[in-house]
Amino acid sequence: MEAKKRITELFGIEYPIVQGGMIWCSGWELASAVSNAGGLGLIGSGSMYPEVLRDHIRKCKQATDKPFGVNVPLLYPDIEQHLQILVDEGVKIVFTSAGNPAKYTGWLKERGMTVVHVVANTKFAKKCVDAGVDAIVAEGFEAGGHNGREETTTMCLIPMIVDCVTVPVIAAGGIGCGRTMAAAMCLGAAGVQVGSRFAASTESSAHVHFKAQILAAVEGSTELTLKEITPVRLLKNPFYEAVMAAYEAGADAEALKSLLGRGRAKRGMFEGDMVEGELEIGQISARLDRMETAAEIVEDMMRGYKAIAENSSFFQY
Amino acid sequence: MEAKKRITELFGIEYPIVQGGMIWCSGWELASAVSNAGGLGLIGSGSMYPEVLRDHIRKCKQATDKPFGVNVPLLYPDIEQHLQILVDEGVKIVFTSAGNPAKYTGWLKERGMTVVHVVANTKFAKKCVDAGVDAIVAEGFEAGGHNGREETTTMCLIPMIVDCVTVPVIAAGGIGCGRTMAAAMCLGAAGVQVGSRFAASTESSAHVHFKAQILAAVEGSTELTLKEITPVRLLKNPFYEAVMAAYEAGADAEALKSLLGRGRAKRGMFEGDMVEGELEIGQISARLDRMETAAEIVEDMMRGYKAIAENSSFFQY
Repeated sequence: MEAKKRITELFGIEYPIVQGGMIWCSGWELASAVSNAGGLGLIGSGSMYPEVLRDHIRKCKQATDKPFGVNVPLLYPDIEQHLQILVDEGVKIVFTSAGNPAKYTGWLKERGMTVVHVVANTKFAKKCVDAGVDAIVAEGFEAGGHNGREETTTMCLIPMIVDCVTVPVIAAGGIGCGRTMAAAMCLGAAGVQVGSRFAASTESSAHVHFKAQILAAVEGSTELTLKEITPVRLLKNPFYEAVMAAYEAGADAEALKSLLGRGRAKRGMFEGDMVEGELEIGQISARLDRMETAAEIVEDMMRGYKAIAENSSFFQY
Repeated sequence: MEAKKRITELFGIEYPIVQGGMIWCSGWELASAVSNAGGLGLIGSGSMYPEVLRDHIRKCKQATDKPFGVNVPLLYPDIEQHLQILVDEGVKIVFTSAGNPAKYTGWLKERGMTVVHVVANTKFAKKCVDAGVDAIVAEGFEAGGHNGREETTTMCLIPMIVDCVTVPVIAAGGIGCGRTMAAAMCLGAAGVQVGSRFAASTESSAHVHFKAQILAAVEGSTELTLKEITPVRLLKNPFYEAVMAAYEAGADAEALKSLLGRGRAKRGMFEGDMVEGELEIGQISARLDRMETAAEIVEDMMRGYKAIAENSSFFQY
């Protein structure tokens, strides 16, 4: 168990905090800021053309001498080009998601990379171990963006994944402060991945309109929807209302795909169109109310975490 | 904060574990077994006629000299008769749910009772405090049975509720072992309420067919549905499939109510009709695989809890 818990050693970082590699939010500025603060920053390559990704990796290397990584959705059309860029640029840590871990894990491991795959159920967690990953991100229902169909929450999912794998498990979904981080560790996680709070940070490349909407979100402001295509947790905005109207009118998967179209997430999250854009964010947005720097977030999380972990009277009842 | 954490003192119990007062599962046998094991047992009055409730309270008093309580859904038609029975029988602890806490909390407090109300959002949590409750149960999306419309998970909900109230918060939803209990305490809870694991226990009055289905459940076996009437988390069985077919056919709230009819939960949970019955259970059913006594459950939870709470190296990273 203890051996499973050292993701700080696995990644060579100070704190067991990973910044989720999010489309349109996490370029080199956010990733390097998190890594410089002692966590693991991830460039989100899912919204980048190959040459844009190369540019972000190069800038990230200039901005930090600490370890950082890249998140790569395996369903991305230019996936092999992306992976070759990681090799060429000497990236040491890759988080893969949205696809079969069996396909590229061996190839990446042969090239000396530390490989982590993101899952939302035990079936894929076991596939990850079979594929030879170094760690797993287990993402609960409350997480933003694309998510599992079983709707298993972080509280239920993490112990199940921990109990069925031999590698460290990084908990994601609903985590963004020291208390939730300590809770995740109690569930057996070796560390946490934080998305939403970093999406709203100073260094996030998200449009300021989107950041403002994240900070204004309250309970019930997000919903996991579009399950007929790929389940995704969205902020409720006019585009979301259009999706609900389509459901009401009996839309099938094809009609929903057509409504979604292409570039909706960019339009909302990067270009700031709060009406027509698709705004991917987690439930924990309801708990966020001010913009902070990445370093402030890491420091605040560790302060809150230590207040629990170093206080033996905390668990008295 | 520390003062908020003593629900053991508030209820006069040994361990901060409350057994949820569930319809068709928690009569005097389960409630007294949990109380005798050091937790707080609750009789679930929502499925009882007034004289049945009186009988269960009397039998519970004979079966334990430890504190126990009664859960009362405030929307129950015979509600005032139920509450009068609690007074007449000298019940000291009442958990109210499914209704406005302002309506009866004062009346119950005047009669010397400790009053706890169940909520799923901060709006109702604040109403509870205004109404003068002694504690709050905050129930996340993963919980079985009736639930909130915002779908806020335990990981997100508990810190929000804790931060907006001055009374102890008991966490519910996805909790059924020492790890999840420790996680809930990290989130700021003063204790936990456990439903599903006790529903499948030896002393539960649930039908053995229902218990077997709970133990056979896997990831994705439950879903929160019927949001047009009252959101409820169910096991997916042929009745659930009929609900899905009704949605597919464009059923409105009236049609769904008509499909649900009356007595579905009794038929499934108590009479063992796994085809036509409504089977209310939490997501954590996926983690349960054998029937245990209430005492075994309480002991196992406390053993797991202490393994974390009393191990200062647990939170190293």
